[in-house]
Amino acid sequence: MSIKVIIAGFKGKMGQAAYKMVTEDPDLDLVALYDPFAPEEQVAGVQVFKSKEDLKGLTADVWVDFTTPAVAYENTRFALEQGYAPVVGTTGFTSEEITELTELSRAKSLGGLIAPNFALGAVLLMQFAAQAAKYFPNVEIIELHHDQKKDAPSGTAVKTAELISQVRTSQEQGAPDETESLAGARGANFDGMHIHSVRLPGLVAHQEVIFGSQGEGLTLRHDSYDRVSFMTGVNLAIKKVVEGSELVYGLEHLL
Amino acid sequence: MSIKVIIAGFKGKMGQAAYKMVTEDPDLDLVALYDPFAPEEQVAGVQVFKSKEDLKGLTADVWVDFTTPAVAYENTRFALEQGYAPVVGTTGFTSEEITELTELSRAKSLGGLIAPNFALGAVLLMQFAAQAAKYFPNVEIIELHHDQKKDAPSGTAVKTAELISQVRTSQEQGAPDETESLAGARGANFDGMHIHSVRLPGLVAHQEVIFGSQGEGLTLRHDSYDRVSFMTGVNLAIKKVVEGSELVYGLEHLL
Amino acid sequence: MSIKVIIAGFKGKMGQAAYKMVTEDPDLDLVALYDPFAPEEQVAGVQVFKSKEDLKGLTADVWVDFTTPAVAYENTRFALEQGYAPVVGTTGFTSEEITELTELSRAKSLGGLIAPNFALGAVLLMQFAAQAAKYFPNVEIIELHHDQKKDAPSGTAVKTAELISQVRTSQEQGAPDETESLAGARGANFDGMHIHSVRLPGLVAHQEVIFGSQGEGLTLRHDSYDRVSFMTGVNLAIKKVVEGSELVYGLEHLL
Amino acid sequence: MSIKVIIAGFKGKMGQAAYKMVTEDPDLDLVALYDPFAPEEQVAGVQVFKSKEDLKGLTADVWVDFTTPAVAYENTRFALEQGYAPVVGTTGFTSEEITELTELSRAKSLGGLIAPNFALGAVLLMQFAAQAAKYFPNVEIIELHHDQKKDAPSGTAVKTAELISQVRTSQEQGAPDETESLAGARGANFDGMHIHSVRLPGLVAHQEVIFGSQGEGLTLRHDSYDRVSFMTGVNLAIKKVVEGSELVYGLEHLL
Repeated sequence: MSIKVIIAGFKGKMGQAAYKMVTEDPDLDLVALYDPFAPEEQVAGVQVFKSKEDLKGLTADVWVDFTTPAVAYENTRFALEQGYAPVVGTTGFTSEEITELTELSRAKSLGGLIAPNFALGAVLLMQFAAQAAKYFPNVEIIELHHDQKKDAPSGTAVKTAELISQVRTSQEQGAPDETESLAGARGANFDGMHIHSVRLPGLVAHQEVIFGSQGEGLTLRHDSYDRVSFMTGVNLAIKKVVEGSELVYGLEHLL
Repeated sequence: MSIKVIIAGFKGKMGQAAYKMVTEDPDLDLVALYDPFAPEEQVAGVQVFKSKEDLKGLTADVWVDFTTPAVAYENTRFALEQGYAPVVGTTGFTSEEITELTELSRAKSLGGLIAPNFALGAVLLMQFAAQAAKYFPNVEIIELHHDQKKDAPSGTAVKTAELISQVRTSQEQGAPDETESLAGARGANFDGMHIHSVRLPGLVAHQEVIFGSQGEGLTLRHDSYDRVSFMTGVNLAIKKVVEGSELVYGLEHLL
Repeated sequence: MSIKVIIAGFKGKMGQAAYKMVTEDPDLDLVALYDPFAPEEQVAGVQVFKSKEDLKGLTADVWVDFTTPAVAYENTRFALEQGYAPVVGTTGFTSEEITELTELSRAKSLGGLIAPNFALGAVLLMQFAAQAAKYFPNVEIIELHHDQKKDAPSGTAVKTAELISQVRTSQEQGAPDETESLAGARGANFDGMHIHSVRLPGLVAHQEVIFGSQGEGLTLRHDSYDRVSFMTGVNLAIKKVVEGSELVYGLEHLL
Repeated sequence: MSIKVIIAGFKGKMGQAAYKMVTEDPDLDLVALYDPFAPEEQVAGVQVFKSKEDLKGLTADVWVDFTTPAVAYENTRFALEQGYAPVVGTTGFTSEEITELTELSRAKSLGGLIAPNFALGAVLLMQFAAQAAKYFPNVEIIELHHDQKKDAPSGTAVKTAELISQVRTSQEQGAPDETESLAGARGANFDGMHIHSVRLPGLVAHQEVIFGSQGEGLTLRHDSYDRVSFMTGVNLAIKKVVEGSELVYGLEHLL
């Protein structure tokens, strides 16, 4: 039996990618689209709702939300009240709002997900890195992005380093008396781990975590080529939240 | 408090590496060496025993065994009977012997390990690959070894493919109508997964598991440069078996 | 002084990419567009010509052609007759046509290029591979593409192998008595070199050439992420053909 | 016809590796060993000379020298005077000495080589990097070494950057307004190029040069696993100097 899905914010880039993914998966059934500002009345036979009032009473399993921070909280609350398990990729929730929505989901016995990052491969890489660091405490991170990126290191690299630092005993890496003949060669230092940020045209978003131990090395690498990659995570989340009984924050909690 | 270790078979390559590792780790205390054919009476103050009879009654926690298939079973049984938790890298045990030794370990409430492979990074890679395959069923394996290796694919590649095939739904990869203009280009086919074996001088032992999904890729790579890499696993095992209450087969069971 | 460029076939995907590249390069000056079927009279102030007759007499340096096999020969001949150095990415020329156009270019003392592949990185990789193979005759090729690709190995991999085989003494690689426990593991055999084709969703077009020698390895890798990559080669060609005095076939002849 | 070789300094690590390489190559014929302090009179039938006086008049083609800085100049001069083409891996020559020896080699019409680095793959990588940088000016270097290395970046990385900076127009890479939230993330800056130094146990000596351009990337990687890798370069040099008529400094001049 297929899962009935509503997509809120279907006109944006992520919403469009979600539309394509849902309509191409035979296990999913798109039952409604929602966007107060969309000019269309319907898309390929699926009705476009302009107000949440009109949606009330519609039978559906999952509410996929790629709208805007201003309305995401209200939308998610609405979804839970209607009995739809929410899968939300919109950012900007306060921790109070997440707590409140989680409690509501429990009261309703509904699963749900709010996730800042739906790139499944990136989430897996971070998990594996944290597992490996228990046994291989010597580790460096190289992240590589296009040369328009303004901040270094990337948020994912810092989050990876944080997760690693929670499981390994803090230690300074490299030779105790090492020196840099050119400043910065050894990269950024995060709790003794070194992080290196490469910026080149042509690159998209890539990360390598390299572990070294006596006589061996272990390298974990994630390559993002296209935003469509997020849809593997959205698809997974849709199929998981219908079996859940509580809203969670972060895709890793559904793995 | 340090762990008291006996090394059996300390004259071989693995035994020598184990000797070096144990004596360099302040948490470990080498209390005896065992080798019926060693000419030395002692090494750096540690007595070399020539018969198991003489060892009886010696206080120790762990018996590290890198001897030969002919005597490994008898040695492991001896260790358990004396109250030493065995860490055995010798091969050639029958499954009956392993079952019997496991039962003896339970009766004695002793931990222990018999492992065909102590390369921790290789074991972790296989575990991660099996975890990732649940979410990324499209995967290929490339293993790279020195050009003296006679068999292809490597045993580790086949074992990795087996572990992956246990968690993913079987599927043929590649375009349904793909063709090879040169036979073999698409590699070996294991349950729909493709495995490629590279053989070149200079290489040691390397493996890449590449997962592909919409718009992203995840690559896990292990590099073995030197047999000393096994010692990370032996060290880990020594510290784990003293807390165990049962002998296990395979390093993965101690992770 | 800037180079005056005409783009023929500016409405196709490659033509549009060329339009963007030329208009964004301050060293290039777009003086005309040509397309018999384009509805526009002009684009951002640049006239769109519908017939070659109307173009006669226009002052320009380079004719960029991304049209169709049916008209490419005629277009290239026209360009040379008008004194424009052609840069042609259209395929389908016979070798007689190329010879004829080359002779015409010599008579006119004009440079020019017809190229089946404008990916500069791929061309450089092939050149480097051929240089390295003189010193490192042990080599394997891994090419990785999206899983919709129907043929294996890729044309680029075969061309790379051909170039390598021209400079190295033919030799069978791998252990003389190596065996495959799974057929195809060792890949395709091209003059003793092994070629491996990986096909996974998410991948675009990638190639690795791995050389192995005693105690060392040399790896050359090219990644194509987007068709826009061809424009680096087109840009280079425009700037080179204005200094040439003969049409050549293949981007490598301009490096 | 085989090349007759003398090895000076055959007792050191490099000398021993050279001995093995020469005796295993059927194209080379070891005719003498030289070491004033060696106890042996001969090794596997080859005479060990203790003084250069005794060597005078011996027929040979090439003098391989892995001795010490103190005697290398004198040895090389001796070799040239006797008509042996020198292949010298010993360091410590002044530029005056090199000039003088080069002049002597011309007078004698003898080839020869003094080289600070015989790793052929590293030399090729540097050459390719300099060729690629003409077309791909956006480049970053990652060098990876064992964690006992005290200096960063490596000498090879700096030399690679120097060679690249000679062929590309100087430019600052990365976004003009990029910022580091952790100092050093963007690595060392050499003429606008960024260099990153990774230090981990298990690694030996590795270098990646990554070029990025619109929609594509080109990566050159060299891996040194073992000092035996230098012998490929020594072997090449022996076979080249016998055809030369001048001593050169740097293996690249023989490629």
